[in-house]
Amino acid sequence: MNPAYQRLATRFARIATLGEASAMLHWDASAMMPPGGAAARGEQLATLAGLQHELLTAPEVAEDLAAAAAEGEWASANLALMRREHRRATCLPTSLVEATTRANAACEKIWREAKAKADFALVRPALAEVVRLQRESAAALAAATGLAPYDALMDGYQPGIAAADVEPIFTAYETFLAEALPRAEARAAAAPAPLPLPGPFPVAQQRALCREMSERVGLDYDHARLDESLHPFCGGTPTDVRITTFYAEQEVGKALLGVLHETGHALYERGLPEAWARQPVGQAAGMAAHESQSLIIEMQACRSDAFLGFLGRRLHATFGGEAAPYARENLARHWRRVARSFIRVDADELTYPAHVILRFRLERAMIEGRLEVADLPAAWNEGFRALLGIAPPDDAQGCLQDIHWHDGAFGYFPSYTLGAMAAAQLMQAARAAVPGLDAAIAEGDLRPLTAWLREKVHSQGSRLGFQDLLRHATGKPLDPADFMAHLSARYLQ
Amino acid sequence: MNPAYQRLATRFARIATLGEASAMLHWDASAMMPPGGAAARGEQLATLAGLQHELLTAPEVAEDLAAAAAEGEWASANLALMRREHRRATCLPTSLVEATTRANAACEKIWREAKAKADFALVRPALAEVVRLQRESAAALAAATGLAPYDALMDGYQPGIAAADVEPIFTAYETFLAEALPRAEARAAAAPAPLPLPGPFPVAQQRALCREMSERVGLDYDHARLDESLHPFCGGTPTDVRITTFYAEQEVGKALLGVLHETGHALYERGLPEAWARQPVGQAAGMAAHESQSLIIEMQACRSDAFLGFLGRRLHATFGGEAAPYARENLARHWRRVARSFIRVDADELTYPAHVILRFRLERAMIEGRLEVADLPAAWNEGFRALLGIAPPDDAQGCLQDIHWHDGAFGYFPSYTLGAMAAAQLMQAARAAVPGLDAAIAEGDLRPLTAWLREKVHSQGSRLGFQDLLRHATGKPLDPADFMAHLSARYLQ
Repeated sequence: MNPAYQRLATRFARIATLGEASAMLHWDASAMMPPGGAAARGEQLATLAGLQHELLTAPEVAEDLAAAAAEGEWASANLALMRREHRRATCLPTSLVEATTRANAACEKIWREAKAKADFALVRPALAEVVRLQRESAAALAAATGLAPYDALMDGYQPGIAAADVEPIFTAYETFLAEALPRAEARAAAAPAPLPLPGPFPVAQQRALCREMSERVGLDYDHARLDESLHPFCGGTPTDVRITTFYAEQEVGKALLGVLHETGHALYERGLPEAWARQPVGQAAGMAAHESQSLIIEMQACRSDAFLGFLGRRLHATFGGEAAPYARENLARHWRRVARSFIRVDADELTYPAHVILRFRLERAMIEGRLEVADLPAAWNEGFRALLGIAPPDDAQGCLQDIHWHDGAFGYFPSYTLGAMAAAQLMQAARAAVPGLDAAIAEGDLRPLTAWLREKVHSQGSRLGFQDLLRHATGKPLDPADFMAHLSARYLQ
Repeated sequence: MNPAYQRLATRFARIATLGEASAMLHWDASAMMPPGGAAARGEQLATLAGLQHELLTAPEVAEDLAAAAAEGEWASANLALMRREHRRATCLPTSLVEATTRANAACEKIWREAKAKADFALVRPALAEVVRLQRESAAALAAATGLAPYDALMDGYQPGIAAADVEPIFTAYETFLAEALPRAEARAAAAPAPLPLPGPFPVAQQRALCREMSERVGLDYDHARLDESLHPFCGGTPTDVRITTFYAEQEVGKALLGVLHETGHALYERGLPEAWARQPVGQAAGMAAHESQSLIIEMQACRSDAFLGFLGRRLHATFGGEAAPYARENLARHWRRVARSFIRVDADELTYPAHVILRFRLERAMIEGRLEVADLPAAWNEGFRALLGIAPPDDAQGCLQDIHWHDGAFGYFPSYTLGAMAAAQLMQAARAAVPGLDAAIAEGDLRPLTAWLREKVHSQGSRLGFQDLLRHATGKPLDPADFMAHLSARYLQ
């Protein structure tokens, strides 16, 4: 490699190391920090982000990027990603970045009150300002990248995916859902009501079981922690991942399936290529790719009949009582229940994409100037009714429910459903490639699956874009047919 | 303030904010981090330290320091401390700093093995290299500060204290101890043997009691955490202090008194002047000052007859069983036991200074070139015998016991005893100034004491040097007479 490339590699490693420090401080803020530490923590994170930005946008970076040359596929991909990060960081004027940070923080704060009061008017002016600035950023990013404005925002979350890729996939899903949802509901209505899971489920036992399950799935606690936070997440760094969950004494499924979901994220981080640690090409391939890894573990593997049978036996052995509630079929009635509902984060696997499709269309329209914030509640309710046949009773259960837009995140929502679809496609390919995959899952052994994921996905870092990663692993780009086939098999037959 | 001063204040705040991030990552490494995170954590801390150093030594800092002017006592003290930090950071060549970091790390690693094997020869070459580099650093610091070489190292831990201040105080203590120790031992021998504290002491109950006691002493858990680590410490930041301890089921005193010790450190951090947060003058006044705050809580207040009576009642109420072992007199026999011993960290209040005096003399001689590393074990054993009349059976219980020298910390040891002496002096002044102080302590209420400490010590930050701080709080500079009077009252009467 030439000296300019070497200097860049050193600089990007330094930037990534500061990012690791931030990641640990973010985890601490959610899982450990006493409330009185919040103000100082905000300063610490802002200082680290400021230094990262300075390192990325220093004048010598542009010179080195112009002079740099890389040999080999990985280094070439790395250099291309460096150029991408630099372009995205330098095309936004500092004044716009600062105005955005302020507007997002102000809006998020008001949103909490507006949501509590189900009063959209309260947050409307602040959200309008957020959208105005997002449009400005999108325009600047579009000019620098050659993408359309909304695509330029999407690209910040999942590189290489544009609205034109998503639109036909989502339209096909809408058609599928219109037919599938009534059938799934009819099938569920004909089945016996689920037996209640007795409880209580003492937190200490839940904690031990969650840890055991995450270990079975492949998480190595020499390089990980499991803690508690209000909103579960996966944070930390590749050699020190930190997952969290939230325990409730009366409910065991939420914490357990949540831990399995975060374990999927954690395994991706753990499996990233060590030789490219702290380089752009050594990072995960984007948010949709990341979500595919949590969902293949949680939704594809762990909510399968095979794993639910195993899990039911472990639950019964742990918490005792009658065996019947822990039977596979009964767990499936609880944890694979299909129902039209207003809240995305509580939605089932079949209707979840409808929540995402609605948001994708609305946020794209807002960025493209076809929808004003004042008209959002009406557009939301109309769109929701068109997709799911019901409309929320108030905006708290409608357009106020998510933090994302109120915190300035536009272009992120599609990642959830792209991830779900990719998970189904990867599972299908793994089944074809790995003999005995489902038999192992039925014994609670996910190692055959995770070994395949490590080879095909995790160890690839960002060498390949989202579509090429899927081609590499499954032989085709994103294809919603596998997801629909999975849903049909699980909910319609 | 002029613009140069303003720029410096902004820069030093940024440096301090990076220091806060480091402090949290250090705490995490000791209290939370899985072992596999160690290598990445090392990189994170090194990167933050490197950025702090770059910010402190950038060319424009020297220009701004030359042009800066400050108004008022606090700002003037702040500017003087900025100049001091800059001088100490810039006078050491980068090559020397790097060689020192490497040599310290290498020596520390070998030391762990040498200590385990009680084999000084193993670590001798590495320690000789550490000492050689410390001499070089001391010479460079001496040239920049006008201090003697060893004083320049001491000044890095406790500004404003030199060997010439310490030498007569330590000599006086040596004389005092020669007479006091046999008397204390005779008195202890004449007393009944202590009743054993029954145990076991379940860890969950110890944890709750430790937290309750630290709250009584004044720690506010909106701004603090209590966790566990192998070596107890106080870390974190002023609005988010993190103290740790280590619980053993069979022993309750060590964790409890350890938590009270760390609470003293934590209260100092919590009480630092908010208006000067992240500025040099807003930091604690040095390591001896810090140790005075942990020891006034642990040794002066909490091991007093008054508090032990209260503590015994709380212990008995918590752990049940017979009342007699928890009587004040019996707890005192356990927790104020005087005995000649080889290990500093286990030493009692009366003999602890002898351990420090020995180290002070030896490390000073090493820095001044009067003692070579090869001669250290013999000098240690001879000095130990002169001070305490016994000699360690091997070097693991002698010159290999502490990490400090093997990690490159020369000039730190005196802080322990200066802190113990300052604690006695401050307690004496607090008793004279605050009516009902001991009566409150007998009720487990330390608020009158900590309120006085907050006003006289904590809120002063680094505005005053160590001696001036004591003058401000007690009307006189460091005077070992108060410490000796305290020891006489506690151990000889």
